[in-house]
Amino acid sequence: MGGRDTAQRKQDALAALARERDAWVASADATGEVHLIPLSYYWDGVSLTMATPEKSKTTRNLIRAGRARVALPSTDDVVIVEGPVEIVAIDREPQLGDAHAAATGFDARLEPEPYVYLRLTPATIQTWRDAAELTGRTVMRDGAWRGD
Amino acid sequence: MGGRDTAQRKQDALAALARERDAWVASADATGEVHLIPLSYYWDGVSLTMATPEKSKTTRNLIRAGRARVALPSTDDVVIVEGPVEIVAIDREPQLGDAHAAATGFDARLEPEPYVYLRLTPATIQTWRDAAELTGRTVMRDGAWRGD
Repeated sequence: MGGRDTAQRKQDALAALARERDAWVASADATGEVHLIPLSYYWDGVSLTMATPEKSKTTRNLIRAGRARVALPSTDDVVIVEGPVEIVAIDREPQLGDAHAAATGFDARLEPEPYVYLRLTPATIQTWRDAAELTGRTVMRDGAWRGD
Repeated sequence: MGGRDTAQRKQDALAALARERDAWVASADATGEVHLIPLSYYWDGVSLTMATPEKSKTTRNLIRAGRARVALPSTDDVVIVEGPVEIVAIDREPQLGDAHAAATGFDARLEPEPYVYLRLTPATIQTWRDAAELTGRTVMRDGAWRGD
């Protein structure tokens, strides 16, 4: 009853972030028009970095909001991450570009269209596998792991 | 090169909607604050019906917007559906309630908290499996299948 404890959920969520490659990224404009797309990411243990065209709806929406809400694909092992987003110019951090290309199999620096990196640092992480785990699903709040 | 043709994509998208059980549901409030949660759905061949607490953020956001954007979980076989949402009172269509409970394994009519059904009828469907399929990814527009 109750499912995994907080320490186990933290460990599993970190493993899922390291193992997975794509996330569903939700964003909205100032009038509340919502957008939802899949993006590949690079996880460095602390932040997720995604690349999108500079002129895309998602880039515009996330610059405006300053925050993003993304989810790993699985709905049986839910991991939802919310937090502030930093825009990183495509040539500002060459090591980030290399790491992102290696993790995603796609080098945004080689695209004909200008891209930017979006670096999301989790402030909130929610994770659950079934209804019994809905209680206690918030394992990180305000950037701090619960129980730390 | 180019991937599946439109007819194949339509067939595959319909099969995925019938086969899957959960979707990622994006919504936003009037100020552009975004929300993203997984919901189970019942697919009747034409619409997806989900159940959410009447007082949830998602219900509020979708009533406001009148439309929803949802995605099946897989990012390797992307199916994104957008369209108008109708709110169905929990006891208005008993057959819908039975079908939803059978499809999702969860009867929203038995919850202590009041629920509503959200019936999303696709106006736009986008589907692709890899970058080669990004061209031609919109297989339904304004409620009409492309090529019909």
